[in-house]
Amino acid sequence: MSDVSGHLAVIGLGPGDARYLTAEAAAALADAQALYGYAAYLDRVPVRDGQSRHASDNREESARAAAALDHAASGARVAVVSGGDPGVFAMAAALCEAIETGPERWRRLDVAIVPGITAMLAVAARIGAPLGHDFCALSLSDNLKPWELIERRLDAAAGAGFVIALYNPVSRARPWQFGAAIERLRLHLPDATPVVFGRAVGRAGETVSVTTLDIARKNPADMATLVIVGTRETRLIVRPGLPPLVYTPRAATAVEVSA
Amino acid sequence: MSDVSGHLAVIGLGPGDARYLTAEAAAALADAQALYGYAAYLDRVPVRDGQSRHASDNREESARAAAALDHAASGARVAVVSGGDPGVFAMAAALCEAIETGPERWRRLDVAIVPGITAMLAVAARIGAPLGHDFCALSLSDNLKPWELIERRLDAAAGAGFVIALYNPVSRARPWQFGAAIERLRLHLPDATPVVFGRAVGRAGETVSVTTLDIARKNPADMATLVIVGTRETRLIVRPGLPPLVYTPRAATAVEVSA
Repeated sequence: MSDVSGHLAVIGLGPGDARYLTAEAAAALADAQALYGYAAYLDRVPVRDGQSRHASDNREESARAAAALDHAASGARVAVVSGGDPGVFAMAAALCEAIETGPERWRRLDVAIVPGITAMLAVAARIGAPLGHDFCALSLSDNLKPWELIERRLDAAAGAGFVIALYNPVSRARPWQFGAAIERLRLHLPDATPVVFGRAVGRAGETVSVTTLDIARKNPADMATLVIVGTRETRLIVRPGLPPLVYTPRAATAVEVSA
Repeated sequence: MSDVSGHLAVIGLGPGDARYLTAEAAAALADAQALYGYAAYLDRVPVRDGQSRHASDNREESARAAAALDHAASGARVAVVSGGDPGVFAMAAALCEAIETGPERWRRLDVAIVPGITAMLAVAARIGAPLGHDFCALSLSDNLKPWELIERRLDAAAGAGFVIALYNPVSRARPWQFGAAIERLRLHLPDATPVVFGRAVGRAGETVSVTTLDIARKNPADMATLVIVGTRETRLIVRPGLPPLVYTPRAATAVEVSA
């Protein structure tokens, strides 16, 4: 590819500390001349001599993408770091949007996306296998889509028996959406449906807890929380002296219907 | 936890070679006295002195779970290896099912599930960010659920605008299901909807290609293939001298409706 100049890697760090880093991600971090990312993610990456660091705010995804692409197009080896997996509610889509609408030289870049452990996989692993059957991942942020579309997706997913992983359940600017989503799901699912809350999984102060759908809206949640809402088949195993296991069986015997 | 005896780890190897292994998974593999798993997954793990290996057939998940649990309950450190992520159409749910219905001593085991890169994340990373918006993961195997339920989930997911990752699209015993699923999705989505096929990603002979929904059923697929069907908002970026990028924008501007 003689007309390719510059290299951009988009690297998934996983949800927490270095234990979640893949060998491929570690190698890609070591290979970069410049790192771009949200400051809290960059802080997880050890400082290396000769590697520049460019931190930005969490909400500046498009500006960060443009700066990283321009830097790479100058011929450098640039990496954008992302929490979790870069392709799941993270930087990879922002970079693709920038490439599609930006200057032609950005389309000539060698782009490598390095997958990571996304939050729902880490939270699920902590509690058993709640994603053991068909499931979906849905962001509750209505910054980039209308709330009516979120409601429609909650109805569709719960009505058809998908386990539902809720990303971005609550932020300071979105205080009511999580409670409204839980109430919406209660139209489809029994009160006793298990709901898993994982906060800061893999980081200091990690918490993972299980409650039921009828009281789930009272559970604290924030931007560091990932919520998994089970189906009517999701099971809870009580264990003596150990935390419970939550799992969704591999088999579904009937076409599920709404309550 | 004085009454805990034995230790069982369920380890996600990721979709391919060791580059996808997390640091946590590598440590858990090194720590085990005995490894259980489908032979093709065990073959990816280097042989270690003093570590026994117990290979079984892909379809013997329940028997493998019982054997590993019994071995761990004898006081050993046992690991079950799983391709991709153990919680996504893999061994973690089978082990939870065994624990729930098995002898009481299995409930006293220290169980650790170690997440891994599941196939849809690896395939998505290879092609851009097709999972950049809300998405679902659906197994097309009707061994453990009725085909009518799969159709209902296809309708629900496509109708509400979820990107759809199809696991287990085709097997020797299930030759027609993939074509039927694609035709079902065509009731909801335009002919030009991008469809990504990733086969053996991260392994020898990896292929990733993009086609459109109208002709997707003619594309070869097997048990090593993961298929991602976009939404009506999924975009394809053509690049000079480079493979195309496929991504789903972060923003959705309207409540999507079926065709």
